[in-house]
Amino acid sequence: MASDVHYHDYLQLDRILQAQAPESTRQGRPAHDEMLFIIIHQTYELWFKQLLYETDSVLDILKKPVLNDNSPELQTVVHRMERMIRILQVLVHQVDILDTMTPMDFLDFRDMLRPASGFQSWQFKMLEARLGLKFEQRHGQEYYLSQLRPAQVDQIRQAEQEPSLLGLVNAWLERMPFFAPSYHWGDFAAPENPGGLHPFWAEYRRRFAESLAPAEQGNLAAFENLFIQDSGETTGTALSREARRAALFILLYRGYPVLHLPFQLLDALLEIDVHLSSWRYRHVNMVQRMIGARIGTGGSSGKGYLKEAADRHYIFREVAQLNSYLIERSRLPALPAGLEARLGFVAP
Amino acid sequence: MASDVHYHDYLQLDRILQAQAPESTRQGRPAHDEMLFIIIHQTYELWFKQLLYETDSVLDILKKPVLNDNSPELQTVVHRMERMIRILQVLVHQVDILDTMTPMDFLDFRDMLRPASGFQSWQFKMLEARLGLKFEQRHGQEYYLSQLRPAQVDQIRQAEQEPSLLGLVNAWLERMPFFAPSYHWGDFAAPENPGGLHPFWAEYRRRFAESLAPAEQGNLAAFENLFIQDSGETTGTALSREARRAALFILLYRGYPVLHLPFQLLDALLEIDVHLSSWRYRHVNMVQRMIGARIGTGGSSGKGYLKEAADRHYIFREVAQLNSYLIERSRLPALPAGLEARLGFVAP
Amino acid sequence: MASDVHYHDYLQLDRILQAQAPESTRQGRPAHDEMLFIIIHQTYELWFKQLLYETDSVLDILKKPVLNDNSPELQTVVHRMERMIRILQVLVHQVDILDTMTPMDFLDFRDMLRPASGFQSWQFKMLEARLGLKFEQRHGQEYYLSQLRPAQVDQIRQAEQEPSLLGLVNAWLERMPFFAPSYHWGDFAAPENPGGLHPFWAEYRRRFAESLAPAEQGNLAAFENLFIQDSGETTGTALSREARRAALFILLYRGYPVLHLPFQLLDALLEIDVHLSSWRYRHVNMVQRMIGARIGTGGSSGKGYLKEAADRHYIFREVAQLNSYLIERSRLPALPAGLEARLGFVAP
Amino acid sequence: MASDVHYHDYLQLDRILQAQAPESTRQGRPAHDEMLFIIIHQTYELWFKQLLYETDSVLDILKKPVLNDNSPELQTVVHRMERMIRILQVLVHQVDILDTMTPMDFLDFRDMLRPASGFQSWQFKMLEARLGLKFEQRHGQEYYLSQLRPAQVDQIRQAEQEPSLLGLVNAWLERMPFFAPSYHWGDFAAPENPGGLHPFWAEYRRRFAESLAPAEQGNLAAFENLFIQDSGETTGTALSREARRAALFILLYRGYPVLHLPFQLLDALLEIDVHLSSWRYRHVNMVQRMIGARIGTGGSSGKGYLKEAADRHYIFREVAQLNSYLIERSRLPALPAGLEARLGFVAP
Repeated sequence: MASDVHYHDYLQLDRILQAQAPESTRQGRPAHDEMLFIIIHQTYELWFKQLLYETDSVLDILKKPVLNDNSPELQTVVHRMERMIRILQVLVHQVDILDTMTPMDFLDFRDMLRPASGFQSWQFKMLEARLGLKFEQRHGQEYYLSQLRPAQVDQIRQAEQEPSLLGLVNAWLERMPFFAPSYHWGDFAAPENPGGLHPFWAEYRRRFAESLAPAEQGNLAAFENLFIQDSGETTGTALSREARRAALFILLYRGYPVLHLPFQLLDALLEIDVHLSSWRYRHVNMVQRMIGARIGTGGSSGKGYLKEAADRHYIFREVAQLNSYLIERSRLPALPAGLEARLGFVAP
Repeated sequence: MASDVHYHDYLQLDRILQAQAPESTRQGRPAHDEMLFIIIHQTYELWFKQLLYETDSVLDILKKPVLNDNSPELQTVVHRMERMIRILQVLVHQVDILDTMTPMDFLDFRDMLRPASGFQSWQFKMLEARLGLKFEQRHGQEYYLSQLRPAQVDQIRQAEQEPSLLGLVNAWLERMPFFAPSYHWGDFAAPENPGGLHPFWAEYRRRFAESLAPAEQGNLAAFENLFIQDSGETTGTALSREARRAALFILLYRGYPVLHLPFQLLDALLEIDVHLSSWRYRHVNMVQRMIGARIGTGGSSGKGYLKEAADRHYIFREVAQLNSYLIERSRLPALPAGLEARLGFVAP
Repeated sequence: MASDVHYHDYLQLDRILQAQAPESTRQGRPAHDEMLFIIIHQTYELWFKQLLYETDSVLDILKKPVLNDNSPELQTVVHRMERMIRILQVLVHQVDILDTMTPMDFLDFRDMLRPASGFQSWQFKMLEARLGLKFEQRHGQEYYLSQLRPAQVDQIRQAEQEPSLLGLVNAWLERMPFFAPSYHWGDFAAPENPGGLHPFWAEYRRRFAESLAPAEQGNLAAFENLFIQDSGETTGTALSREARRAALFILLYRGYPVLHLPFQLLDALLEIDVHLSSWRYRHVNMVQRMIGARIGTGGSSGKGYLKEAADRHYIFREVAQLNSYLIERSRLPALPAGLEARLGFVAP
Repeated sequence: MASDVHYHDYLQLDRILQAQAPESTRQGRPAHDEMLFIIIHQTYELWFKQLLYETDSVLDILKKPVLNDNSPELQTVVHRMERMIRILQVLVHQVDILDTMTPMDFLDFRDMLRPASGFQSWQFKMLEARLGLKFEQRHGQEYYLSQLRPAQVDQIRQAEQEPSLLGLVNAWLERMPFFAPSYHWGDFAAPENPGGLHPFWAEYRRRFAESLAPAEQGNLAAFENLFIQDSGETTGTALSREARRAALFILLYRGYPVLHLPFQLLDALLEIDVHLSSWRYRHVNMVQRMIGARIGTGGSSGKGYLKEAADRHYIFREVAQLNSYLIERSRLPALPAGLEARLGFVAP
């Protein structure tokens, strides 16, 4: 073992606790609340680092050509995503602290910080990129670019080229072996269109149609388009039809052991989105309360940016949409015994 | 003293704890999660009752023709509004519990409840009305009407005719005596336009203009319109110019003892809005996750309704906007000693 | 489908919202805060009902002679325990609302409620009993009995005789098949003491001893006593040695698929305890703040009761203790391939 | 204005985000969860810095020989204490994040950190000292000393010599002018013992005695001792009898404007204690879950230390106790008009 470790050195507290240099002090007009402003943003950035760290570790696992269901890989992925959710919940809660800074208190130093703003957080945008947000989907692209340094923009662009969580989840779903030829699906088997869609889906489509009330018939065309159609025009969507079918299958049959962790993974994606956008939303409200509707400040554009971002930047929206196409458990097609056996544990 | 009271009877637990009759049980297809669905909505309604109870008590105080600054009235108003904020925070938190009900679990009984829906909560709409939301401002008026019983709609319409929190705050602000003739404002006194606007505002306007960066000059016209103009065209706004000036004065000079509680009151209005809309927002997200983007269900319209409501139903928006017109403490006009004396306590 | 269901009727809001009858109003000296006091306790009781409902459903599953690993049973158990955790977190948060009632405000009606007190919540004690708290372990048994009605005491005593969550978890752990003869454990096999302890444990004991620093050697005797000894003197403990070994094995090897849900179950027990006792603790603090250290009131005994209860009523303490006997992952005995195969999914 | 400020430089993110050097990486056996361990402790320390910063600013105000009721000083004190409360609530919430680190995951790097431990947080102990905790009151003094560096112990000892929040509140209460000769208290005036206790207290004592139920008579002697007795034997208590009387008067008559902020200050002290000890308590539970009951580790002593500390380190306990000696509002002695006038605002 190494020599003794001391808490203070281990955490590098000399660096951490001396990294607060209020601009208002430097300019000779100390404003009490600037310390809070600095420290809360530093804690946000520390947590963003942790979120990126967890995301990267999850990406590394999902990048493997095959996940071994008998290894702890998927457990680890889900566990780390759940940790991310808890971090995001604390980030939302932290806004309560900043709410104690009144607009008049902020005015005491606001102008000294120009043009610095929270919209310049490179790590947060990197996090969005790694999760799967593309430049084209971002609201206010120009404003967004203007807030970052060129080198930072390059890194985010680079990240957008690399596999994101959403992209890797799509690939992982596409690899799901449920519908592979090696699974012989008793009742649904003997496809008349070899190489075509497994007959399970024709059956599911029929039952889904039955489940729709008259006013809901419009969903059938959407179902066709999202899950069935053969043509390749899924351009612009993050999930392929193959991936969507696998995801829907997981949502429907999550009771089978081998589908439980995949279900938790899909569910965690949605929770991440909910808390990310709650954070953006509390942030908008806070900015709105702080600077009202002032015209022409960075903050004002920032507020509009945040508001739109809170609405539009749902990263896993396509996963959430799948829930529109479920049918009741009692209407589900029973799975053939041969497949059932493969969805569970070795019999003792 | 009365005879002994027992917890169980006092809380009428026999009624409370036997008021859960799952529809799925009645129809012979028990769905486990329906109990949660019932109980969480019952707790929401109990808390809505408490919110209405606190709101009504606050309205009763504010309806008095004059608040006595030397009574605890304003303390009580602020204290109860802060309690409302804490209740709203718990209501937001409670959504975490409902998030454990998965879409498949909800499907087990969803169709049995039609057309019941959370949008039929009469108490919540009553709360919005008592706080100050008018029918004209409501998003989706038709949908909204369709969800309530005629008698309930009548009661809410009735409530909209009565003084709301926002209306009473406006009246209370208009009564603020700072600018009354009896306050002789040394430096700013001797108005050349007797009966006109107090010269303080010309001075404030000048300093506000100075504080604006070139890109922000557009705010000056808005300032004129909101605080200065003489014409009566404030139609359609909740706050009059007189009330706005009083509110701005409170925000600027909250350090004086007599303005402290008024400041806390204005601040509490904004916090109520933030948490109300956080609740609507978490609620939208929950509905979105639960039913996706299904076309033609009540839920779907409900989702759109909620989403717009979360954006538009800011009740105290006009109060929040005032923060756009603050100037730095160091630029504030000093108040004349005569007025200062009236903003504080009796000298000991 | 049944005829239309309306939200208001479905939730029986006429009963729920008319079940508040403040004693202070009845006695002609209305105290504003009594409504809050009633409503918060009613919401607590509604949530206690939900907690009991979830607990009962979990007990029903665990009472089955065998859980089928290939059914969703264990998923359901863990999912519902996680819901219980979220409910408990909201219950802790709710104390923030009650904290807005000041001691002077409480005094306005406190004496009218005597001797009613929160310690008379029968449902909460029933919950403790169903989870596994025995009468002998309760602090302040006499005080506790005095607060309940005889019929209620009988029901709780009855519940204590029935299988509790802790008891059923012990039985479920004892049934774990890892160490059954049918599992041929390559390296550790050929036990010299047929029918005796599986040689895995001798190996684990050796490695555990190695992992202890000199100052920690005292843990070895405790390890022997808890996991190894043959004698029957585990009287008075909730977990048998057999169950403890299974639980320790789960904690150590949770990475194997078949152990993942069992691990989550054990972890959820500890989270339930943490939040239950946080609730008791916030409750103590609230009572302490409300009535200080007043001698001779029910509250005062109640405070002492709660404080001790917060310390002593850890229901799953024996599960938490197991974490003292883990060794690092890198020191773990590798499992024989034959066993490994049985801890995972059918190979695709 | 200075040249442009950029968010990244302003927050010194290069220092903050590069201050994580996992020991497990340095030793060549990277443990994933060590990053979380480092970052959560760094955020804790950043918040401790903020808490100390707010505390120091509050102490600076309270150190003034006289607070000017007509300045914003007391507003500022209360506002910053309320900010501290919100920070403490987030610190409690953060434990939820650390709870995602399982004992096995912690074991992967735990031994590499020895003997570092959270008990070595110098800032937290400094915070306790500044708030008013004395060395003599600390549990486990030896253990406590052993965890800090000599220079750190010196600084805390030094802080204990300086005025603490509790000490300054005591002095501020003693200076309260309500009972000064210059206040002529009509009804209660004409003291027969000039220079002695104001006759208000004899009257209050009488009414307090009346309010006690037979079983509560023991509180009368305690009342005498805490508020009335003339002898100087309050040694060892933080509050003098004079201060206690002023505090009790504030609690009873908080409805008068000049007493409102003093009431909020006393209330905020209790909230700080509640959340500080909730934090210690969640921390104990977390340590208990992480290392169980292992004998001989630093953690184990740490756990015992924390548990006792959670129970004993109530800093403002003497303030909380005052709530035992309130009487109902309807029984309160009315204050003479002359005094009433001095407790309010200048008549308009």
